[in-house]
Amino acid sequence: MENLKKQMEFLIEIDKLKNIFRQSLIADASRNENDAEHSWHMAMYAIILKEYAPKDIDILKVIKMALIHDIIEIYAGDTFLYDEEMTKTKEKREKESAEKIYSILPKEQGQEIKALWEEFEEKKTKEAIFCATLDRIQPIILNYLTKGGTWKKHNVTKEMVLKKGYLIFEQADERLKQYVLDIIEESIEKGYLLP
Amino acid sequence: MENLKKQMEFLIEIDKLKNIFRQSLIADASRNENDAEHSWHMAMYAIILKEYAPKDIDILKVIKMALIHDIIEIYAGDTFLYDEEMTKTKEKREKESAEKIYSILPKEQGQEIKALWEEFEEKKTKEAIFCATLDRIQPIILNYLTKGGTWKKHNVTKEMVLKKGYLIFEQADERLKQYVLDIIEESIEKGYLLP
Repeated sequence: MENLKKQMEFLIEIDKLKNIFRQSLIADASRNENDAEHSWHMAMYAIILKEYAPKDIDILKVIKMALIHDIIEIYAGDTFLYDEEMTKTKEKREKESAEKIYSILPKEQGQEIKALWEEFEEKKTKEAIFCATLDRIQPIILNYLTKGGTWKKHNVTKEMVLKKGYLIFEQADERLKQYVLDIIEESIEKGYLLP
Repeated sequence: MENLKKQMEFLIEIDKLKNIFRQSLIADASRNENDAEHSWHMAMYAIILKEYAPKDIDILKVIKMALIHDIIEIYAGDTFLYDEEMTKTKEKREKESAEKIYSILPKEQGQEIKALWEEFEEKKTKEAIFCATLDRIQPIILNYLTKGGTWKKHNVTKEMVLKKGYLIFEQADERLKQYVLDIIEESIEKGYLLP
């Protein structure tokens, strides 16, 4: 029962992800999106867009990554993609947070999930790259749907989006790339994004 | 590109799940939980509690089920477990909703996910049973953490919880069963649940 108690304690602790709010608004622009919803949505992106991933990808790993990739923000907070000051301390804050949260779990299981998060952060394996690509696409779509949302609020330019989204434009499937580029161009035309 | 457009349309439409609120409160009792967060949390339960599932379970299927099991509520709404009137029309409402939402996707993919939802609803395969078990446990924990939350509001008794949770108590792993029974007994002692 010792292991189960630790696992339940972890499942209770991560409820806090529902209170970590992101910069992105949800699609109807009524409020900010939280990390739990974002993680669910990203996992759905992985399920639905699997055919645009490399053929031999481990999709279970991608889905797990999507579900756990922001758990460290429970203690580290959400770091806005374009906040250069916060980004400087991001790695340190998130590593400390990972130590704290994953040590709640039975040792081996905690190490396993922490390793999965580290793999996501390193963005070297095809699973991590595909997952990170979805993590970039999802807020781009939300910004488009909310008529510029975060982009307008922070005077974001096309160059900034492309720079932060290099994973998409370098390594993603051509169709996915084209879809996102079209959304970006349409966003500029409509005045949601600075050229 | 036709398929991708349909897939993106679906991913945009399901953003609405973030606005479907459940009876359960989140763990800090600050507000009701929505379906997107609940689905994320259930998928995390599946990842963390996998060792309590039958040995040869397809955990990818369980996780996918958890992520999609409430999508039909976008049009059908959330039906409270103990609302007998709403429960009468639940099946019809949810079937119509499934037709509507899954027809947004490319045909084959839509049928595949609809079939996964139907498998969950039928609760016959081991994946569906394990997933449904987690779907019962998660709100029990939230009710306990919120000092009775939904239970107190609706005068729920131990018998009602056990009746609706029969999947847990009949088929679940002994350790998981004991953990939940202990939570229920403690909830009665603390006055969160009627005996």
